[in-house]
Amino acid sequence: MFENALAQAADEVSACLTQTLARYPNVPLTDAMRYAVTGGKRLRAFLVIEGARLYGVYPRQSVWAAAAVEALHAYSLVHDDLPCMDNDDLRRGLPTVHVKWDEATAVLVGDALQTLAFDLLASKECAPKASTRIELIQTMARASGGQGMVLGQMQDIASETALTPLNLDQITELQANKTGALIQWSAMAGPILAGQDVGPLRHYANALGLAFQIADDIMDVEGDAQKAGKRLNKDTEAGKATFVSLLGMDEAKKRASDLIDEAESALAPFGDKAQNLREAARFVIARES
Amino acid sequence: MFENALAQAADEVSACLTQTLARYPNVPLTDAMRYAVTGGKRLRAFLVIEGARLYGVYPRQSVWAAAAVEALHAYSLVHDDLPCMDNDDLRRGLPTVHVKWDEATAVLVGDALQTLAFDLLASKECAPKASTRIELIQTMARASGGQGMVLGQMQDIASETALTPLNLDQITELQANKTGALIQWSAMAGPILAGQDVGPLRHYANALGLAFQIADDIMDVEGDAQKAGKRLNKDTEAGKATFVSLLGMDEAKKRASDLIDEAESALAPFGDKAQNLREAARFVIARES
Repeated sequence: MFENALAQAADEVSACLTQTLARYPNVPLTDAMRYAVTGGKRLRAFLVIEGARLYGVYPRQSVWAAAAVEALHAYSLVHDDLPCMDNDDLRRGLPTVHVKWDEATAVLVGDALQTLAFDLLASKECAPKASTRIELIQTMARASGGQGMVLGQMQDIASETALTPLNLDQITELQANKTGALIQWSAMAGPILAGQDVGPLRHYANALGLAFQIADDIMDVEGDAQKAGKRLNKDTEAGKATFVSLLGMDEAKKRASDLIDEAESALAPFGDKAQNLREAARFVIARES
Repeated sequence: MFENALAQAADEVSACLTQTLARYPNVPLTDAMRYAVTGGKRLRAFLVIEGARLYGVYPRQSVWAAAAVEALHAYSLVHDDLPCMDNDDLRRGLPTVHVKWDEATAVLVGDALQTLAFDLLASKECAPKASTRIELIQTMARASGGQGMVLGQMQDIASETALTPLNLDQITELQANKTGALIQWSAMAGPILAGQDVGPLRHYANALGLAFQIADDIMDVEGDAQKAGKRLNKDTEAGKATFVSLLGMDEAKKRASDLIDEAESALAPFGDKAQNLREAARFVIARES
């Protein structure tokens, strides 16, 4: 059930991105953009589509906001993988954009994918009312720019050269910015599309986002690089503070599990309709990539 | 008169950007963003503000769209200056962001400035009607992303390693994407804010944008690096085709002058009210930076 829904969200988003990029000129830049938005779990897209479904908004509409958040996520990965940032050669089991093309292309692909994200949110298909689209754009800007994701990436880089490792509060804040804000946006897009209160799904996404990052730190230590499709053990090698180094493995696993319980509780008002989102929460801490 | 208007537009935009960034967290990323949006001629901001004035929209409103285009322009410069792109150490007479900070910061500053541009356009102060803001965002996305400015930058990089130099049509298309699209957007923002036909100012901006680039190529050969605040003679050293190499210096100057005449003709319907925009066109081919 959940696996089907996840796969279907991934297919719908891929089709939407393919269709949109088909209107772009037939040049290497567009090829590289297409490459960068291919693959991945599409967890953020799934959260948009399932969150929207809870409020009666159909996938044929919510897929535009879902495609936008995946374009934005893809841009952040392409830039994050650059030699001057995390310097990763492998992403989703394939060569990263700067390896397959070159660094200049990777910078420009990331730039164009960010633009694409806002373009998708501004398109009429995303929401009939312009004011709804504006709300999606404003919340996306806050979640992803210098007050959100990009701030978190900067904090992450700074932490690598800091004299003392970050403490638990600092790591939590860093991760809330770096990955939490965009996960939260994804869950809130549905109620925004429906013109409803974002409160319940914000609560769900807060807990989910933090659990996601703790699970990432656990995977960095215990995971299988083959299944993960990316280099592991990076944080340990870099001597970076993580939830695992700060809490210990057992406590980190307990904390992640508690957060998933909290995420599930936040879905109580929706009853059975929220079953896919409940399973998504379990998936987040059980995933291998 | 024109110099006053240009200086005033610059002051208004700087104040708007300062005010907006004051709401950002007090961290090095924000400092570097502030640095990157400081200085420059603010020609694009001036086009927005003067274009809007022609249609009865006051600077206190149009300054938001003007600030957006300057944030977007600044992002493109920060990324363009990166070692993997143009590798420039000097911009506006000061060290570039990756020299003063580092490459990772420069990537993230550019990313966050692009987000800021869309955030400014989405803000209520930019236009009371959400549909107007959406139109500004959509046209900005088309002008700046993989179908506009970023495409032009990619074409520019590709031209450096091409086996045969570009011909005049190819250079014209490249420049229309790389710098023309954003200059055109700047001139069209005013009529969009006023809900009026963008035709006359689009015509003006088309001619102006091309003249701007021809003037840049002339400055690259004849200019004074001290006054320009950036390295010159780059294209000649790189053996790149330019308007000067393709047309010869005399013909390039004549072409730029003809285009300025054409830009001025497009302003005829506005009479004396368009005097500042007329002088801006003359300024574009006479400037030294």
